[in-house]
Amino acid sequence: MPETRVIIDLSNRHIHLSTEDLAVLFGPSYSLTKTKELLQPGQFAAAETVAIVGPKGRLDGVRILGPTRPETQCEVLASDVFRLGVTECPIRESGHLDGSLPFQVVGPAGTIAKTRGLIIAQRHIHFDPDNARRYEVSDRQIVSLKVSGDRALVFENVVCRVGPAHFLECHLDFDEGNAAGIRSGSYGEIVK
Amino acid sequence: MPETRVIIDLSNRHIHLSTEDLAVLFGPSYSLTKTKELLQPGQFAAAETVAIVGPKGRLDGVRILGPTRPETQCEVLASDVFRLGVTECPIRESGHLDGSLPFQVVGPAGTIAKTRGLIIAQRHIHFDPDNARRYEVSDRQIVSLKVSGDRALVFENVVCRVGPAHFLECHLDFDEGNAAGIRSGSYGEIVK
Repeated sequence: MPETRVIIDLSNRHIHLSTEDLAVLFGPSYSLTKTKELLQPGQFAAAETVAIVGPKGRLDGVRILGPTRPETQCEVLASDVFRLGVTECPIRESGHLDGSLPFQVVGPAGTIAKTRGLIIAQRHIHFDPDNARRYEVSDRQIVSLKVSGDRALVFENVVCRVGPAHFLECHLDFDEGNAAGIRSGSYGEIVK
Repeated sequence: MPETRVIIDLSNRHIHLSTEDLAVLFGPSYSLTKTKELLQPGQFAAAETVAIVGPKGRLDGVRILGPTRPETQCEVLASDVFRLGVTECPIRESGHLDGSLPFQVVGPAGTIAKTRGLIIAQRHIHFDPDNARRYEVSDRQIVSLKVSGDRALVFENVVCRVGPAHFLECHLDFDEGNAAGIRSGSYGEIVK
C-alpha cells in the first residue's frame, strides 16, 4: 500500500521577484534579508515586503519569498481579489503565468507595472523522487486531499510536483486552511 | 432518484441581536432598518452595524441580521479569529451556543460584554419539508456537498435543517466560498 499522509503548510499572500525587479524596487545590487528558511530547499521568507496595487485597491506588507526567480509572480488569496478590484483572478500553478493578471508592485526605491504575474496559487504537493515512489504519484498527477475535523473536506485538483529540489509537503493557502479548519502543521490524506 | 442540486449563498461575518441587547447598543425601543430581504423567510440584512471586540483586536462594521432573536450570537470567519486574538473558536450551528466564546459588542449607544455567543458557523443547508422529501434528507442529517471548478472540493459535515420556515439554500461562509472558488449563486451537489 502506498503512503498517503502528508503535512500541510498554509501560505499567506506573497510575491517572488526577478533580480531585475528587485533592483528597481529596492535599489541596484540589493540583497534580500533572510528571516526564515522554508521547508522547500533553498527557499526563504525575506524581511522585506512590498505593496501590491490593483485597479481599485492595494495590499500592503506583502511578504517577499526568496531567492529571486526568472519572472516576478504574486500569489494572492481569493479574499484579496475583491480588495484589489480584480473581478476574476485565475488559479495557476507557480511559474505557469499564461493568462495571469497585470498588477503594480511598490517598493521603497521604485514602482513596477507588471503586464502579468498575478495569480491565485493552485493547491499542490511537493515530492522528492523517493517519496513520489512511496506515495506512488508522478509529476503533474492530480490527486485529492482529505482533511479531517469539524470542517472536514476533500480538496480535489491537487497537483503533484515531483523533483529533486522538492521536499514532501502540501501547500494550501489561508482561505483553504480556514475553510478546512486547519493550521500549518496539520496533516491530510491523499485520495486517488 | 432524489434531487441533489442546491444553490449556495456565502455569508460574511454577521451578528444576530436579542431585543434587550439591541436596546442597549442602539437605545430604547430602537428598530432595525431593513435594507435587503434574505432568502430565509422573514430574515433581513439591516443597515446597522456594530463593532466586535476580542482580547487583542476588533472588527468594525459587522452587519446586523434581523429580526431580533432570543439570544445574541456573532458568526465570524476563521480568518477573523486571529484579528480578534481568539485562539480557538468553536464551529457551531446557529443557536447552539454551548461552549461558544465571550466577546464584546460596541454600538452607538452602548457596549455589552457577552459571556458567550461567538462562533464560526457550521455549514448547513436549509430545506422546507417538501424539498426535504424531494432531496430525501431529514432534519439534522449530515451530508456532503460537492462543488465543481478549478478549486473543486467536497465539503463534509454539512448539516441539513428542515422546517416550514426554511427556504432551500446552502449557507457557506466567505472562507469556504473562497477555498472552493465560488460565489453566492453558485450551485453544489449533495453527496450522501
